[in-house]
Parts: sequence; structure tokens; C-alpha cells
Amino acid sequence: MTIRVGIAGYGNLGRGVESAINQNKDMELVGVFTRRNPEDVKLLNGNVSVHMMDDIHKFTDAIDVLILCGGSKNDLPEQGPALSALFNTVDSFDTHAKIPGYFEAVDASAKPNGKIAIISVGWDPGLFSINRLYGEAVLSEGATYTFWGKGLSQGHSDALRRIEGVKGAVQYTIPVPDAVDKVRSGSLPELTTREKHTRECYVVLADGVDGNKVKETIVTMPDYFTDYDTTVTFITEEELKQDHSAMPHGGFVIRSGKTGEDSAQVMEYSLKLDSNPEFTSSVLVAYARAAYRLHQNGETGAKTVFDIAPGLLSPKSAADLRKELL
Amino acid sequence: MTIRVGIAGYGNLGRGVESAINQNKDMELVGVFTRRNPEDVKLLNGNVSVHMMDDIHKFTDAIDVLILCGGSKNDLPEQGPALSALFNTVDSFDTHAKIPGYFEAVDASAKPNGKIAIISVGWDPGLFSINRLYGEAVLSEGATYTFWGKGLSQGHSDALRRIEGVKGAVQYTIPVPDAVDKVRSGSLPELTTREKHTRECYVVLADGVDGNKVKETIVTMPDYFTDYDTTVTFITEEELKQDHSAMPHGGFVIRSGKTGEDSAQVMEYSLKLDSNPEFTSSVLVAYARAAYRLHQNGETGAKTVFDIAPGLLSPKSAADLRKELL
Repeated sequence: MTIRVGIAGYGNLGRGVESAINQNKDMELVGVFTRRNPEDVKLLNGNVSVHMMDDIHKFTDAIDVLILCGGSKNDLPEQGPALSALFNTVDSFDTHAKIPGYFEAVDASAKPNGKIAIISVGWDPGLFSINRLYGEAVLSEGATYTFWGKGLSQGHSDALRRIEGVKGAVQYTIPVPDAVDKVRSGSLPELTTREKHTRECYVVLADGVDGNKVKETIVTMPDYFTDYDTTVTFITEEELKQDHSAMPHGGFVIRSGKTGEDSAQVMEYSLKLDSNPEFTSSVLVAYARAAYRLHQNGETGAKTVFDIAPGLLSPKSAADLRKELL
Repeated sequence: MTIRVGIAGYGNLGRGVESAINQNKDMELVGVFTRRNPEDVKLLNGNVSVHMMDDIHKFTDAIDVLILCGGSKNDLPEQGPALSALFNTVDSFDTHAKIPGYFEAVDASAKPNGKIAIISVGWDPGLFSINRLYGEAVLSEGATYTFWGKGLSQGHSDALRRIEGVKGAVQYTIPVPDAVDKVRSGSLPELTTREKHTRECYVVLADGVDGNKVKETIVTMPDYFTDYDTTVTFITEEELKQDHSAMPHGGFVIRSGKTGEDSAQVMEYSLKLDSNPEFTSSVLVAYARAAYRLHQNGETGAKTVFDIAPGLLSPKSAADLRKELL
């Protein structure tokens, strides 16, 4: 029995999911759904069909789990509740502040329809969240630190591109090495936003634009840059394309706490990713397996990574896992 | 409602569990059980009673979860099955090769009696196992590496102490930095046992014993030392006590894999522990919370860390976890 998977939305994430499904022998991609003209969407595997998103309701019997690969800002708030009424779903909704509301909306849709919807899957939210939880559950007295990077931040790059006179731009978030070292030492430092990360911007200016003005706009931008030490480097369009097209990312979750009389204990989880979207996609595919199994077991409603026992993610049986990995 | 916890066995691990319970406001220690004379056992908290192990069956109504703090070699193979018929239990059974059989024995005892028994909890088996599982579930094509140390290995120290002419000894397991670096680089190296770890032995000789003979016995000892680069340093009894009484440990689980065309992705989990037994105890206490909740939900039988959803470990509600940690 293979798990029949569908993909809703075919950007970087959808392409990553297609690729990850190919790495998992117990899964099969049965269709991709798009709001573009299906004929314009070229898959990695030419044998899989591309369909119009509007036709997706015709595929409820053909798909065991639908992986939602749209964006958190405009796509998922609508697609999550709509599609979890029809399919078991997995998504990477990552607007942290809106997760509780999104969870309720998806749950209200999935549960009465007998579907499972695992939301906010990926690495943050996702694997990083799990490690924040394990950290504070095990070391009750301590502090948790999350560092991101070195990595390309999509949201901050978008913010740069919206500035007048900016033709193209990318932004890298970089953990401050000294702060990471302090945290790793177990000394439980208190760190400000500025002390934890720096931000590097690479910007292509439109012709005749005043670089100093753009730079000032960037470093004083509220929420995005004003609380950070930000550097701005102007580059050419060619340099942007050649040196900044990859999407690396990563980071650390560190839990530092004390036990007994005064023993320092440090738990650290870190990711070093050549491709952020491909990694997120790989996590989505593992949780699609869990969604399928939970549905098989008769469970319904919205779930998060906190609700999923690790064993549900593996293609191996519980007995094999105990024997090989415990 | 506090969770009423009992401790069976009061060595380093039992003492660590008592200490960890004090850090968790939703738990209460209701009794310690020992095979020694209860009057000889001094707890950290003088208000808790110490009882004879033989009387433990009288406490089935007073204890929600019993944490088994005996050893894997002689205590748990007998106590695990016996006590999981009477109590919800959590233990740290860590003889990897015997886990499948132990699981079956405990399951056969717990299930018909309506009890939950979470076995093999700690960091390896335990948190390291979970990370091996997450690693291979997410990055299906790749390799998993576990490094231990720098840390004091109890089993190897015991092996040294059994050698004739050895009065006292400790053994440290140390990951080879070059091997760790290679793995972190994502190059998927193949590493032999010797290339991954070195072993450092600190030995106190009895009077008049030939050090060269003892050294030869150590470095050629099958299973324990012959496959490793082992160093032996002779020290005095005072040095042993002064410099080698702490029980630090730690290590790394690294999963390195490829996604998409050829993107290298590296997931790493690491622990740096001042006190190995205190950390293991802290993990046991978090899983005691999960055992209590599973039992409340009507579940029964043996479980491992693979079967436990992360959220069950936290004192926080699912809604608070989504809001604060996701």
C-alpha cells in the first residue's frame, strides 16, 4: 500500500515536496494542483498530471494526503480551512502569532469532516518548536534560546524589495558568534535582539537612485531592521543572480538549565541547510505519513508537531524502530 | 491535581529523580523504595518516607507513576515486568540489544493490568534515539552518526575495575574531533569504530602491581578497548577522588543527507552534561508526566519514547504550547 499524495501549489515548496516524495518508497505523487494554467507548470516527473485548483474537489477519493504548499500570508489562511474539509492535509503555516487562530479555523473544518490536518510543519515552526518543548520539559529550570541563520530570510528580502528605488535584494540573518558561545557555555546570558543576530542586506539599485537614502530607509525600518545591526551592500543585478540565488538557512535551539545542586546541562539542536525550501518539504512529507496513519486510526481534527509521536513519521514498524534506532 | 510519584531504587539516578521532581510543581514525591535498610537511606527531602521494596505492593493506590531507578543489568530485567503489573512505570533500561525482549516482557505485564510502562527513557536510549528517528524520517537519503562524549562511561569503568591489580579506575569516551568535523561538513564519510572515538583510562594500581601488564590487559580487552585507540594513565587514589568524581557526559547525533538535485542538509543534536545521572533523571520525570496522561486517557501497555507525542511531556496545555512554543 502506497500513500497517495497530492500537492496544492507548485512553487519552491511544491517542487521540494515532489522531490522528497521520490525519496520515499511508500509514497506516490498522484497530482499537482495550481491556480496557474496547468499547461504552464512543468513537473520534475513528467508522468504526473497537473490540474486546475478549481477541480481539486474531484480528487477526494484519489488522494490520501494533500500537502498545501502555498504561502502563509495569502494562500493558507483561505486554503487551509477550505481544503481540510475535503482532504487530510499537511501545511507549513508559519506566521507564529496567528497560529492559534489558524489552528481553530482548520480544526473546525477538518474535525466534522473526519479529516486530519497537521498545521505549521517545517523547521520553525516545526522541528525547532519540538526542541524548544523537549528542552523546557526536561530542564524545567533554565532558558531557551533560538538563533536563526546564517540564512536567507524571505520576509526581510521582500521588505527590501518593496522600498522605492530597489530593483532586487536579499537579506541574510546571521547569529552573533559571541552570543552563541555564551549560550553554549551554560552561563544563561540575557541577550537583547541586537546582541543575538545581525542582518546583511545585498541590494540592487534602480538607475539614478540615491544609495544613501535607500540605506537610511533600510536601517531605520521598524520591526524589520531598526533593532538590529544591519549592513547594506550595493551589488549589480548580475552579482545578485550569481551569488545570491541559493536559499541556505539553518540555526540553533539551545536549552540551558541547571539540575541537582548546580550542574549545568546544555541541549542543542542545529540545522545547516543548503536549501531551506527542500528541507521544509522533506519535513512536510514525513508528516504526511503521520497524517495518513492518524486518519487510518480514526483520529480527526487539527494537529501540530507537538501532537505527533515520533514513530508515526518513520516508514519502519514500531518493532523495527525499537530494534534499530532506540 | 499533582502527579504522585514513587521512586524504586535510590542510587545516583534515584537521587536525581528526587531532585528533578522538586523542579516540577505539578509533581509530588510520595515515597522511596529500597532493598537496603530504609533507615540507612537519607533523602534530600527529609519529609518523604523511605520504605522497604518488599512493601511496595501496599502503595498501589498512593502512587500515580513509579520511576524505576535500578540498573539495566541486574535490577530492571526483574523489576520492570514485576512492577509494571502494579504501577504505571518509567525506566531507563539501556541495554540496547535486549530492548525488544524487555519491551515484550513489560508489555505482557502492564497491558492486562491496565498500566502504562514507558521503557528505555533517558538520552541514549531516549532523546538521541528520537533524533536518529527524526533524522532518517526527514532526510530519507543520508547517514546517521552518533558520537558519545566527552564523558565518563560507567560500563567501561566497571570493566577496568574488574582487572586484577586495579584498585580504582574511570574511563572517558572522547569523540575524535576530525571525524565530527567531517560528518558536520555533510560529506557523508564512512568511519570505523577506531576513527570515531578514543578512550582515556585513569587507573589506580594496587601496591606492587606491574603497570605494564595492566596496561596490556586493558588495551587488548575485546569488545571494550581493542577496537579503539586507548590511553592509560596511572594516578593516585587521591587524584581519582579529586579529579574524577564528577559524571559528565554528552555527545552528538548527526543526520546528514541530500535533497533535490544535490543540496546537503545537516541536522545535529547535541548534549553537554555536567551530570549524566541528573540529566537522565530529568528526562525520566518528564516522561512520568506522559505516563500519567496516557493512563488517564485509558491507554495501556509498554511504550517507548517513539510512541510519546512531545506535547505529553510538558506541564503546559496544548493551547499554551501552540501559542508559546510553536
